[in-house]
Amino acid sequence: MRFDIITVLPGLLESPFAHSILQRAQSKGLSEIIVHNLRDYSNHKQKSVDDYQYGGGSGMVMTIEPFANCIEKLKSEREYDEVIFMTPDGETLNQTMANELSGKKNIIILCGHYKGIDQRIRDIFVTREISIGDFVLSGGELPAAVLVDSIVRLLPGVLNDETSALSDSFQGELLDAPVYTRPADWKGHKVPDILLSGNEAKINEWRHDQALERTQKRRPDLLK
Amino acid sequence: MRFDIITVLPGLLESPFAHSILQRAQSKGLSEIIVHNLRDYSNHKQKSVDDYQYGGGSGMVMTIEPFANCIEKLKSEREYDEVIFMTPDGETLNQTMANELSGKKNIIILCGHYKGIDQRIRDIFVTREISIGDFVLSGGELPAAVLVDSIVRLLPGVLNDETSALSDSFQGELLDAPVYTRPADWKGHKVPDILLSGNEAKINEWRHDQALERTQKRRPDLLK
Repeated sequence: MRFDIITVLPGLLESPFAHSILQRAQSKGLSEIIVHNLRDYSNHKQKSVDDYQYGGGSGMVMTIEPFANCIEKLKSEREYDEVIFMTPDGETLNQTMANELSGKKNIIILCGHYKGIDQRIRDIFVTREISIGDFVLSGGELPAAVLVDSIVRLLPGVLNDETSALSDSFQGELLDAPVYTRPADWKGHKVPDILLSGNEAKINEWRHDQALERTQKRRPDLLK
Repeated sequence: MRFDIITVLPGLLESPFAHSILQRAQSKGLSEIIVHNLRDYSNHKQKSVDDYQYGGGSGMVMTIEPFANCIEKLKSEREYDEVIFMTPDGETLNQTMANELSGKKNIIILCGHYKGIDQRIRDIFVTREISIGDFVLSGGELPAAVLVDSIVRLLPGVLNDETSALSDSFQGELLDAPVYTRPADWKGHKVPDILLSGNEAKINEWRHDQALERTQKRRPDLLK
């Protein structure tokens, strides 16, 4: 699966894509993540990518041309399933959406900055607008990294232990049960006896009860 | 405001904290962001920070000791307002929470990985558990970066234009109105006439109507 990310801050995305599962997915050839510097697509002398907003008001707005140039070049090279704009007023990312997007082949992701991007970019090019939550960030770069991470870890072969992704929170209807590892006793804080019992049926039952209890307490909305 | 982030992948966080607003906040002395390598706090010969989970099952669990060592060292040096664990089953981050946290002085953030962290770390040390949304990621690093970004941009003096943060989506009750910049006509796609009218009162009215319409269409829940 291929991601083309268009941003005015390509350097910001260097380290998240060079570590952990995103790095592994790329080195295994399971995913390609290409970061494009928006300024390279500006026809402007000073490589400007923003301008004052029409109608007045604080904050700069990103101009159409550099995005259009980059998107049109990419589209001339291959077919894209989606052109996604990361924006706090988009549909909120959830696991179902990540699952669905993991079935796509080529995706372009636009990262906004400053006051926003010219509305016409959204009207003309964008096929889907995604938010990672009800909070404001400095730009779309971290949300893009979050989106890519949520998708790439679902691609077959990316995780070492395939069952690990399936048993995550949100893949079932319940949050995860608590987990414990050694030591069994840390300064008087002990692991629940049941987990040391070796009785698999009882352990599974305990885990289900704990997951249900945690979900009821923390996220009753998931049980509806 | 000071953030101490504890992670097994400190390198992953390098570039997000070295660019844009997070970089500026640090160079202006308005924020300190210190990333701690969890392995440096392991007493284990191989600097191991995880182990098999009690009761069986796939996925490794992060052990208590390295987190405990790091947190206890930090707490011996200064007072902390919160020890936050980034986890998909925590309370969901929103703008109100970011606003509230921006009033704190020192915060520790724990990044989980693998199958999770030993429940006793959560029970003993963690004061608050935060999720950035209903999706699963490879680890808590990107969520930690998102949380820090959402907070730091609210600190006085961090944004160049103070009004910019106040007029963002979610700071009021409405999503943002569309924004436009030059050219007024791009291949036949025109900026709405009203924005070129120079009539400030009419422009403000149009923006409010657009914001209301967008919110009604996309996020009616915000209007309740």
